[in-house]
Amino acid sequence: MLAEAGIVLTPAERERIEVADFGLGRLEEIGLQLVTYVNTERVCAKELVLFPRQTCPEHRHPPVDGQPGKEETFRCRRGTVHLHVEGMDEIVLQPGEQFTIEPDTLHWFRAGDEGAVISEFSTRSRDDSDVFTDEQIVR
Amino acid sequence: MLAEAGIVLTPAERERIEVADFGLGRLEEIGLQLVTYVNTERVCAKELVLFPRQTCPEHRHPPVDGQPGKEETFRCRRGTVHLHVEGMDEIVLQPGEQFTIEPDTLHWFRAGDEGAVISEFSTRSRDDSDVFTDEQIVR
Repeated sequence: MLAEAGIVLTPAERERIEVADFGLGRLEEIGLQLVTYVNTERVCAKELVLFPRQTCPEHRHPPVDGQPGKEETFRCRRGTVHLHVEGMDEIVLQPGEQFTIEPDTLHWFRAGDEGAVISEFSTRSRDDSDVFTDEQIVR
Repeated sequence: MLAEAGIVLTPAERERIEVADFGLGRLEEIGLQLVTYVNTERVCAKELVLFPRQTCPEHRHPPVDGQPGKEETFRCRRGTVHLHVEGMDEIVLQPGEQFTIEPDTLHWFRAGDEGAVISEFSTRSRDDSDVFTDEQIVR
């Protein structure tokens, strides 16, 4: 799916594609595949891949160590993304469209019938501090 | 060149592709074309396009308003980038390869014979505070 979106990975990056099933064991339905390009103290960039209709479950990025929570921009590269952000109507992103999620704001998203490739531009990513609404989830 | 790299822009984004000739009037030789996706107080993401052998001249991103200077990761998406960073040998980036430039570090880069498309992931971009080595340059 990344190759179809014109995205080139190095052999080393292909070895470290992350598959997140959030501890639920239902990957095709609830999960996320991702490649992290960079994650410094200040900046993070990733590619996210969602299978057809796969969902990334509701969560938020709270403040950590006195810093504001993670700020994320999702840019759809391929397919369709249905994005749900606390207090807003559903946002549908087609290729080239994007949305910025403010820190500590609940959100979840799912791909349309063709799956989706999403570029994420953000502040530092600290997955272990994410707060999921479903308490069964382990990131 | 963006389309050839598989990158989709919205019609509104196509209207605001920025062309920077740095006030030198020699665009094909020294210049840069770019699309800024997002530029908040904390995060910036852009696509940079270089024509064949076009050069982005030497500059650095100093601290501004008590904040450290801009930190940039350049990821080559298409073509070849020849990157020169203060105190280092030339870095050659092929598609999928990237390099992170620390704040306030002199750097310049040029495309190979086929031009280049580069994704830039960074902290906030403040072009008016960039310091160019060539004093004739106006950003």
